[in-house]
Amino acid sequence: MTQRFKVTLAYDGTNFAGFQAQPNQRTVQFVLEKAINKMSKKDEYITVYGSGRTDSGVHALGQVVHFDFPHPISAKGMLRGLNSMLPLDCEVVDCKIVPNDFHSRYTTHGKRYLYRVSRGEFVNPFKRLYTGHYKYPLDIEKIKEAMPDVEGTHDYSSFVASGSQAKSHVRTIYEAKVYEDKVNDEIVFEFYGNGFLYNQVRIMVATLLEIGNGKRPVHDFLRLYEVKDRSQARQTAPASGLYLKEVYYDEEDEKL
Amino acid sequence: MTQRFKVTLAYDGTNFAGFQAQPNQRTVQFVLEKAINKMSKKDEYITVYGSGRTDSGVHALGQVVHFDFPHPISAKGMLRGLNSMLPLDCEVVDCKIVPNDFHSRYTTHGKRYLYRVSRGEFVNPFKRLYTGHYKYPLDIEKIKEAMPDVEGTHDYSSFVASGSQAKSHVRTIYEAKVYEDKVNDEIVFEFYGNGFLYNQVRIMVATLLEIGNGKRPVHDFLRLYEVKDRSQARQTAPASGLYLKEVYYDEEDEKL
Repeated sequence: MTQRFKVTLAYDGTNFAGFQAQPNQRTVQFVLEKAINKMSKKDEYITVYGSGRTDSGVHALGQVVHFDFPHPISAKGMLRGLNSMLPLDCEVVDCKIVPNDFHSRYTTHGKRYLYRVSRGEFVNPFKRLYTGHYKYPLDIEKIKEAMPDVEGTHDYSSFVASGSQAKSHVRTIYEAKVYEDKVNDEIVFEFYGNGFLYNQVRIMVATLLEIGNGKRPVHDFLRLYEVKDRSQARQTAPASGLYLKEVYYDEEDEKL
Repeated sequence: MTQRFKVTLAYDGTNFAGFQAQPNQRTVQFVLEKAINKMSKKDEYITVYGSGRTDSGVHALGQVVHFDFPHPISAKGMLRGLNSMLPLDCEVVDCKIVPNDFHSRYTTHGKRYLYRVSRGEFVNPFKRLYTGHYKYPLDIEKIKEAMPDVEGTHDYSSFVASGSQAKSHVRTIYEAKVYEDKVNDEIVFEFYGNGFLYNQVRIMVATLLEIGNGKRPVHDFLRLYEVKDRSQARQTAPASGLYLKEVYYDEEDEKL
């Protein structure tokens, strides 16, 4: 009686070579499959399917994966079992048994990313792995003015890294916002869209920071959509500030 | 024209083998002396004197050191120079030129430590290196009731690790407090005293958590002062939750 599990993960990306399995690398998929296969004790190898990759150093608050498990076990039992075997930089925060046609990657209809930027002349030692750092002056009002340009359906060819294998660069961003976290003296970006290209969020954040600094005109996104030229949006904000916050599915698709 | 510098440091203790220099170990003293001696370029080796040691994995928000520098340079120039050369897990947060009889260790009259405890069944990946974790039930009111017992002048022999070389175990704690950090779902302890024994704060915190859990009577500190027996306060809270927050000096001693 094989059951399909939907598992939501939080991980500190610092010591992972990204999400996806690669030979001789410590990846999130690798440590997760190791724990699951130890629990299963069967000859048949259980593979984990993620909603998408995250790069080396990128964090997750709510990455979603699914896999099929061949023994009867409750969702709570799976959550506890996995957390007892996973390393401390990866935690299962939620676990559900879902229908066999649920697929973490193919049935998702959106993702939300968060990007944290720390300020100040020097990098705070406790933030170096968990924020991007920007030491130059920023006018956050300018960034706020630019945010509506980020939303909508656009060809994001100017915002995709060269490693991308996507056929189309057209995506839709439903919500793009920026706010000040005064307690932590940080600027936080959030992007909710139907899908994101390779490095898209990090390139958009770097461009938005240049807008805030006055290096670019406020509405430069509109020009960048037109030119479809990666060399026009040159910078990529560091992986350390990026968090995959949530992956969205239809509630119906999760109902047994 | 040698000048004495008082430097206040913040560091993430995770990747340091503690503060004090040891052969073939990456310590805070080592990276700091390396940066200072690179700036000085003289044959004579410049040694850094810390207010005291911190153990491997213990953090600092305000560790204080002093050293003598043989070239004319402003306090601001020293701060910027050091931060440009130090690794990102160690930051100079303040720098002053002080009289030649200022001594980070001998002229201090107090220190403040902070201890952060995270809650919940599982360890949050982003807190594993920055808090101690306690998953058992806690009645914070019991801990609050015990805190006045921690204050005062006592023989803390029951709260000192075996590696201690202190001749006397009598110390004075001026202030001991505990509070809930509801934003982060943490319990925070603060201890301000004239000096602390080896592992004293971590042993006291472990004992206070056992009081909160009901494993020990609320006023067990009073008994522990009497018995002077380390085996009666067995646990040591992990290094990851401990922060050297502030080192106190007389303002007069810092005046040029």
